[in-house]
Amino acid sequence: MNNVTRLLQRHRSIRKFKPDEVSEQVLEAIVRSAQMASTSSNVQAYSVIAVTNPETKRALSAVAGNQQHVESCPVLLVWCADLSRDKLACEREGVEMVSGTMENFIVATVDVALAAQNAAIAAESLGLGIVYIGGIRNNLREATRLLNLPKLVYPVFGMCLGYPDHESGVRPRLPLRAVLHRETYDETAQAESIDEYDRRTRDYYIERTGGKRDTTWSKEMADKFKRPARAYMRAYLEEQGFRFD
Amino acid sequence: MNNVTRLLQRHRSIRKFKPDEVSEQVLEAIVRSAQMASTSSNVQAYSVIAVTNPETKRALSAVAGNQQHVESCPVLLVWCADLSRDKLACEREGVEMVSGTMENFIVATVDVALAAQNAAIAAESLGLGIVYIGGIRNNLREATRLLNLPKLVYPVFGMCLGYPDHESGVRPRLPLRAVLHRETYDETAQAESIDEYDRRTRDYYIERTGGKRDTTWSKEMADKFKRPARAYMRAYLEEQGFRFD
Repeated sequence: MNNVTRLLQRHRSIRKFKPDEVSEQVLEAIVRSAQMASTSSNVQAYSVIAVTNPETKRALSAVAGNQQHVESCPVLLVWCADLSRDKLACEREGVEMVSGTMENFIVATVDVALAAQNAAIAAESLGLGIVYIGGIRNNLREATRLLNLPKLVYPVFGMCLGYPDHESGVRPRLPLRAVLHRETYDETAQAESIDEYDRRTRDYYIERTGGKRDTTWSKEMADKFKRPARAYMRAYLEEQGFRFD
Repeated sequence: MNNVTRLLQRHRSIRKFKPDEVSEQVLEAIVRSAQMASTSSNVQAYSVIAVTNPETKRALSAVAGNQQHVESCPVLLVWCADLSRDKLACEREGVEMVSGTMENFIVATVDVALAAQNAAIAAESLGLGIVYIGGIRNNLREATRLLNLPKLVYPVFGMCLGYPDHESGVRPRLPLRAVLHRETYDETAQAESIDEYDRRTRDYYIERTGGKRDTTWSKEMADKFKRPARAYMRAYLEEQGFRFD
């Protein structure tokens, strides 16, 4: 372990922030760090919108199911997969961009995630805290309108940014052997790993809530996956010009 | 700037590795760091296969268009989006998993990217070097066979891991104002940013290759996007059980 792996392994989401502003210098250090993440063939297929306007944050908080921290954080970063800039580059070379494949969609979605995770690490190293806001995907049509996004751009997640005003525990993860396989995929490791993790998450919730929350990872997953998630997504993405041929 | 933002901003891909092994302890520190990345509603929808077997690496190198470093790196990590474990969790609760939406696909693809980027940072902080291998997506059917992947799992990218045996320059990125927008998306900043970046990338390539490579970012993008990319992807993903409703 060194300072960096300790920082990475100490990550916890922060949902309450001090009123302190995030300075321009700090924001730029974070986004410049994001930019240096790997990118597929240098396409850099992402953009990030820094939102500080209270009305926009309030509206995006409503999109995300009224998550109070989306409104109260000093800066909300909205991370977008973005093929529109690559399209502009093609146009100036007189080339019609062919971006209508699942592959292009994957590339843009991965590119923005790599950049955002670098931003998260940079922010935490500078004493800030973050929480990813997947809830922005509740209504991407509204987010697209609020942020004035052009075609070939879609918000993948938000990220609240600011100085932490609370501490929270580090949530235990699946046993290492569940996610790390050797040479080939090991299905036999899964059942035992889930048993072990169900026990650990149950203990964690009981301890953390004084016994009020008594559940397991399996129960949480069953509850999450028992109905279709955000079923409008495909249609929205097609409206934004993405194709999945 | 601090040690971490310096590390993040110093990233360069490494394609030549010393023969030194990556110890079990180092590999575990890297994957444990990966596990602490944020994950959507704790689904942890990813797996990573650590490949050291020379034959498998050779075969995956062939998949990736004969990238020599895929064969010669001490460890190849294959990062997979993985909804199969969540399906197992649902099954033990007697729930039939409903995972047939674009949303679920995005969640799994983002989850693995966040974890992998933490792994990249951890590795670099420990003195190792990495390069992402998108080329593994040239033939995911073959990669799936070689790694014995179950349904609801797909390799998103590989990552060569080892101790660097060369130095390489840090490739310039787009101007900050191209990717960082304020309050709403700023289309007007794009044309000028691309002009500036085309000049910078041209200078960079000319200097780096002694004048042999004379191109711009726009030309590279036009060349990349003029034909459909990996058009079999959607069909492959459906074979693996993913749906995009």
